[in-house]
Amino acid sequence: MPIDLNADLGESFGAWRLGDDDALLELVTSANVACGFHAGDPVTMRRVCARAAERGVRIGAQVGYRDLAGFGRRRIDIDPEDLTAEVIYQLGALDAFARASGSRVRYVKPHGALYNTAADDSGQAGAIAAAVAAVDPELLVLGLPASELERAARGAGLAFVAEGFADRTYLPTGRLVPRGQPGAVHTDPMAAVAQAVQLARFGTVTAVDGTRIEVQVESVCVHGDTPRAVHLVREIRRTLADAGIEPAPFCA
Amino acid sequence: MPIDLNADLGESFGAWRLGDDDALLELVTSANVACGFHAGDPVTMRRVCARAAERGVRIGAQVGYRDLAGFGRRRIDIDPEDLTAEVIYQLGALDAFARASGSRVRYVKPHGALYNTAADDSGQAGAIAAAVAAVDPELLVLGLPASELERAARGAGLAFVAEGFADRTYLPTGRLVPRGQPGAVHTDPMAAVAQAVQLARFGTVTAVDGTRIEVQVESVCVHGDTPRAVHLVREIRRTLADAGIEPAPFCA
Amino acid sequence: MPIDLNADLGESFGAWRLGDDDALLELVTSANVACGFHAGDPVTMRRVCARAAERGVRIGAQVGYRDLAGFGRRRIDIDPEDLTAEVIYQLGALDAFARASGSRVRYVKPHGALYNTAADDSGQAGAIAAAVAAVDPELLVLGLPASELERAARGAGLAFVAEGFADRTYLPTGRLVPRGQPGAVHTDPMAAVAQAVQLARFGTVTAVDGTRIEVQVESVCVHGDTPRAVHLVREIRRTLADAGIEPAPFCA
Amino acid sequence: MPIDLNADLGESFGAWRLGDDDALLELVTSANVACGFHAGDPVTMRRVCARAAERGVRIGAQVGYRDLAGFGRRRIDIDPEDLTAEVIYQLGALDAFARASGSRVRYVKPHGALYNTAADDSGQAGAIAAAVAAVDPELLVLGLPASELERAARGAGLAFVAEGFADRTYLPTGRLVPRGQPGAVHTDPMAAVAQAVQLARFGTVTAVDGTRIEVQVESVCVHGDTPRAVHLVREIRRTLADAGIEPAPFCA
Repeated sequence: MPIDLNADLGESFGAWRLGDDDALLELVTSANVACGFHAGDPVTMRRVCARAAERGVRIGAQVGYRDLAGFGRRRIDIDPEDLTAEVIYQLGALDAFARASGSRVRYVKPHGALYNTAADDSGQAGAIAAAVAAVDPELLVLGLPASELERAARGAGLAFVAEGFADRTYLPTGRLVPRGQPGAVHTDPMAAVAQAVQLARFGTVTAVDGTRIEVQVESVCVHGDTPRAVHLVREIRRTLADAGIEPAPFCA
Repeated sequence: MPIDLNADLGESFGAWRLGDDDALLELVTSANVACGFHAGDPVTMRRVCARAAERGVRIGAQVGYRDLAGFGRRRIDIDPEDLTAEVIYQLGALDAFARASGSRVRYVKPHGALYNTAADDSGQAGAIAAAVAAVDPELLVLGLPASELERAARGAGLAFVAEGFADRTYLPTGRLVPRGQPGAVHTDPMAAVAQAVQLARFGTVTAVDGTRIEVQVESVCVHGDTPRAVHLVREIRRTLADAGIEPAPFCA
Repeated sequence: MPIDLNADLGESFGAWRLGDDDALLELVTSANVACGFHAGDPVTMRRVCARAAERGVRIGAQVGYRDLAGFGRRRIDIDPEDLTAEVIYQLGALDAFARASGSRVRYVKPHGALYNTAADDSGQAGAIAAAVAAVDPELLVLGLPASELERAARGAGLAFVAEGFADRTYLPTGRLVPRGQPGAVHTDPMAAVAQAVQLARFGTVTAVDGTRIEVQVESVCVHGDTPRAVHLVREIRRTLADAGIEPAPFCA
Repeated sequence: MPIDLNADLGESFGAWRLGDDDALLELVTSANVACGFHAGDPVTMRRVCARAAERGVRIGAQVGYRDLAGFGRRRIDIDPEDLTAEVIYQLGALDAFARASGSRVRYVKPHGALYNTAADDSGQAGAIAAAVAAVDPELLVLGLPASELERAARGAGLAFVAEGFADRTYLPTGRLVPRGQPGAVHTDPMAAVAQAVQLARFGTVTAVDGTRIEVQVESVCVHGDTPRAVHLVREIRRTLADAGIEPAPFCA
């Protein structure tokens, strides 16, 4: 069974650079492109879409809170109606770049605090699903399995794609250890590589308390904003190849 | 011959209201909807697109500089490559709302200082045209006749629609008296009504020095951000009707 | 005993006007001036500070979340360290205008969702108090009595001034009925006038369930962003005058 | 004669890091701290001010256009009255952090496109000088000698400090080769070191056409946003020391 590799890309803003988009576009099969609300500027979005289209990397809208100063990492108690409009806006903006490159946006994945909020908050999860359905019911939603977002997406008639994380650690409940807590991120690259391969081959992950839990995923997320990110993804690909697994996008 | 009436709409932002969008949508045939860079927020964009679609009012992207604090009225020496990306972004964002309402963006009109700059600056005019062509070569460009924007649009293979202004005064060259100069705006509503009708019926306008100049236009712009705007447009429609002219959109 | 009347002022932003600052500056004794994060722009801040200084109206920093699109009315889960820095920033910016007008900022009052959050969240309340103390321990904090903000301010060695609201309704606990809930605002101006005078004369308020509760306040807040705001404050002053009460600032 | 070394600092924004503030604060004598309009966030401003105060590095306000997306590098045709208010705002915000650290802002230096515009445009130069004079006539203005900014500062009764550039190349007129033109920046670090020392020792610089021109300066600017910036400043200090010159701030 193939596995998709997704990463957050296009997170630079103006003069500020973040991540190595070009290198990652050689390695991932799906690119979650920031849409300008928490990160990303039009020039970056255009460039990343053009490169992704050239390489056959699927383009997804990495939608976030309107919070450049906080990089979308702070929960905002936004009214669901307002959030729906903000997601439609971001989706449309990115899709224009994708189409101008001969591709199109295939899926939506919330970023940062919106990702976490949409896992547990039915109001915000529903707002995202409503936006996606309003723009195009063929769009997929990528996120945490067994979350409010999955429920909302399926409830809105959308296909949902479950993802796991290479470098984030898991609670025994299947949720991620919150960023900011100690041990939230695998600092040992080998642990991240091992977790990615375990997710891809067996659909399981070992939680922080040692429990082996089932996490059926079609995609593994690798973070692109660390210095060693590119190296890490390369290692994951190599190890997957050793196990006979070739990454492939989750959508046509 | 029919004439189109266009107005700037959707220029509210968050808690700040500007203009009477609902009333104007009963009166105009084309709505230049602000796209969030100089004015407009996603909730307003969504609402205006839904109402415009219901009433058959054509939706255009009123693209501007990224300058909420200046309402897009200050020229920015932005690199043309960057401007192209910013226009694509705005266009795509608005189009998502238009399509979610069963309509779509039909044309692009630059706002404020970008409008003025694109009239004379071939670099910025070309950047706008390049953006429009990249998104969809069927889109029209609405603007000042005999401008750099017209040249750039036609050069990019786009159809250009010339507009005149009801309440702005003209120089003998056919350009507008710059905002901020005395007499730039008709303070007498009757003068604005008369100018609109003269433009629609005869394709001429009387410049500030009394010269009658030819200004062949397919659309007349009426500003929506003044308290008396709705009354003014109503008067223009009534006076046009008296002359047997029924406003109609410039595009199908 | 005198009573202070405070109102939120300077909440315009760029081309968008909100409230009638000039009229309110003739009526209130303390002006909570927006500092640019949730509302307010430098030109407006400068103008309001100049007028307030001329009239002897005390200037306070109305600090808010960095959220122009949401007018500071959405809670943001900002890290307290970050919030402290954001409050220092806003305070300093406003103080420069106040000093350029020969006055200075005397107090700090959080706005909107920050006001509500600081009433119950010790982290954010402490962050505000830390900012105020870092800038100038002589500054006062204006807010809801018996709140986390009061506790934090006093804990940081700052003087705290309790305020009541003319047009917001109260729960029997002494907290405000949350905005967005029905009946959160007195729609009947006479009810608002009566509540203001009851607060000023007797230090009590009648909660939504009819309970008379004690709310010892030194200032009454009147909102400036409604069309009838100026009329309302004028009525409050007139009714207070009938009762022999002359509004006076709570600080020298 | 001593020479001051100034660098732009605090140009990070939220999650985006730029430059090595800590290393530069060990090397420069004056820190031009970004104030949040073109770069810089409150947390960064606070941190840089605290470190600068500890080390005795003088704090200056690096004021810029309100243009995060363009990093303040695009000219904006802002009305001088508005610019004055924007400069007062930025100055006040930074001063609050400086004072909270036991220091204070000593000087103002415009950034990027505002620097260039203020060299030639008397309106914008006058607006900056008016802002500085309104906040505190004891503040100094740091900038290009023989510029409109110098004229405006002196005209407003302010002291002006002339600076030269280590890594920017000069036209024979004494102006800088505009960024974006080939050869605008010394790519050879040795050329930058040599130019800095020539400026400090002899008050001259060799223009791009080989002309030796007189540029009397009290401070040399070294840019901090390049990877090799820290190394470059270290080399400049070392070479100056070899010539018996110890960097010292231009103000008490």
